[in-house]
Amino acid sequence: MEIAIIGLGRMGANMTRRLLRGGHTVVVNNRSRGPIDELAAEGAIPAYSVAEVVEKLHAPRVVWLMVPAGQPVDDHIDELLTLLSPGDVIVDGGNSRYTDTIARSERVGAAGIGYVDSGTSGGIWGLENGYCLMVGGPRDAVALVEPAMHTLAAPEGYLHVGPSGAGHYVKMIHNGIEYAMLQAYAEGFEILEKSRYDLDLHAISHLWNHGSVVRSWLLELAERAFADDPHLDSIRGYVQDSGEGRWTVFESIDLDVAAPTIYLSLAARFVSRQEDVFANKVIAALRNQFGGHAVKREGEA
Amino acid sequence: MEIAIIGLGRMGANMTRRLLRGGHTVVVNNRSRGPIDELAAEGAIPAYSVAEVVEKLHAPRVVWLMVPAGQPVDDHIDELLTLLSPGDVIVDGGNSRYTDTIARSERVGAAGIGYVDSGTSGGIWGLENGYCLMVGGPRDAVALVEPAMHTLAAPEGYLHVGPSGAGHYVKMIHNGIEYAMLQAYAEGFEILEKSRYDLDLHAISHLWNHGSVVRSWLLELAERAFADDPHLDSIRGYVQDSGEGRWTVFESIDLDVAAPTIYLSLAARFVSRQEDVFANKVIAALRNQFGGHAVKREGEA
Repeated sequence: MEIAIIGLGRMGANMTRRLLRGGHTVVVNNRSRGPIDELAAEGAIPAYSVAEVVEKLHAPRVVWLMVPAGQPVDDHIDELLTLLSPGDVIVDGGNSRYTDTIARSERVGAAGIGYVDSGTSGGIWGLENGYCLMVGGPRDAVALVEPAMHTLAAPEGYLHVGPSGAGHYVKMIHNGIEYAMLQAYAEGFEILEKSRYDLDLHAISHLWNHGSVVRSWLLELAERAFADDPHLDSIRGYVQDSGEGRWTVFESIDLDVAAPTIYLSLAARFVSRQEDVFANKVIAALRNQFGGHAVKREGEA
Repeated sequence: MEIAIIGLGRMGANMTRRLLRGGHTVVVNNRSRGPIDELAAEGAIPAYSVAEVVEKLHAPRVVWLMVPAGQPVDDHIDELLTLLSPGDVIVDGGNSRYTDTIARSERVGAAGIGYVDSGTSGGIWGLENGYCLMVGGPRDAVALVEPAMHTLAAPEGYLHVGPSGAGHYVKMIHNGIEYAMLQAYAEGFEILEKSRYDLDLHAISHLWNHGSVVRSWLLELAERAFADDPHLDSIRGYVQDSGEGRWTVFESIDLDVAAPTIYLSLAARFVSRQEDVFANKVIAALRNQFGGHAVKREGEA
């Protein structure tokens, strides 16, 4: 099929490559020119503006956005609404908040244009293995994009999970689960690393991937990480978060669902990014106040 | 090789079957007679007492215990110490606490008998897929048991991880990780189940197993569970624990390692087993005291 990808970061560029390999015609656009030319050299059709994207596609057009969540998505929608025709479809393949997606779907739908949300998992491995696509939106709009979905997805890795927002919703919860799974392994490996035994974490993660109950793709990645750096000496314990963990926590609160390990996994990341934790200063200060317990002063080891 | 299995519960019986299929000679004993006769009909050599087990083996003997953790292990060791000879080996394949294993290893070793601990993962699937064996103990004792280990294990699912206790230690942490992974999926699926969307948890777990970051063997089991019962209507949310989760928490405290999600996963099981939670009564009572907030009385819906 014919499709445009706007946003050629790591994900968008690799998805373009997978679509090209699958025999699709891919028009590509990006804020900066470099990635457009790079992918044009690999067989994509370059478009140096959003207007050019729309010109180069035949109706009904499919424009897949792989731009950062938030304002960039709205900016692109605003521009596309001045250029597209009824029956065309916009896909948001990024990690947008599902409530934003519902609102955008209504705005875009009012212009007769279909709006599809695709939660996309698979990271840098998706190019070779295929992605896992969690897709929401109206049936007819989704149908128009399905040939590309099937090419992008790993075998059986594509599902139309529900109406607008459902794709991003399922992806949000997927990522919340991922936070707590990462934390589960992290806590276990820290205990092993600090135990009385001199344990080989690479060998143990390899072992656990063969017949044990905790085997998983994340554990395969742990095996690779420990192979490269057995005690992770080269890596700082500083962990970013990209929004979906905190949205999962907000959602759990809205639904009165207890999600303590997902919340704590998010909180552990907050702590990981602080040189010193103010809350701990408060505790040290109060223990000093009520019990005369010694405090360490700034600059003291 | 020639080996005895004492304790023919679900795990011990299936391990016997896998050893028989692998061409080993297996002497079997159990507290009750039924499983002995059943496995004898499948090719095992029956022994109706521990003394008979020892008589039927040729030195150096290997006796593998698959009895419940705790006193049954010590009782069997006491009896075996009166029957075995120096150079023989006892394997504890159950979920013993690693500190007990270290103490037993010293007691057994003092009699010139080898003591091997094998943490065994794989559950009821181990018979077909092979087990994941995390093994601790002295090199020479472990070497004597290795032919059986290789048969029991999934491909690459066997590793001598360290000295006495290390096998049970690694299995303990494995189970601690398993607690938190289960809780991670559990929280995510509860949010999906209670969401505004009418989501198909079977289809989503199947989808996530194809190319997503959270794919795992546990998620494959979730897929099976949701296929059988899409909303788990037939299952009560009552969850036992078998010791290793709490030992992981104790160990994390001994090592000053923060393991909050493993602890909370254990705590969630405590709460799951209570009709009403006393702590919640306390909160309701105090909110009533300080703010006049209504309380529900016993018997009130």
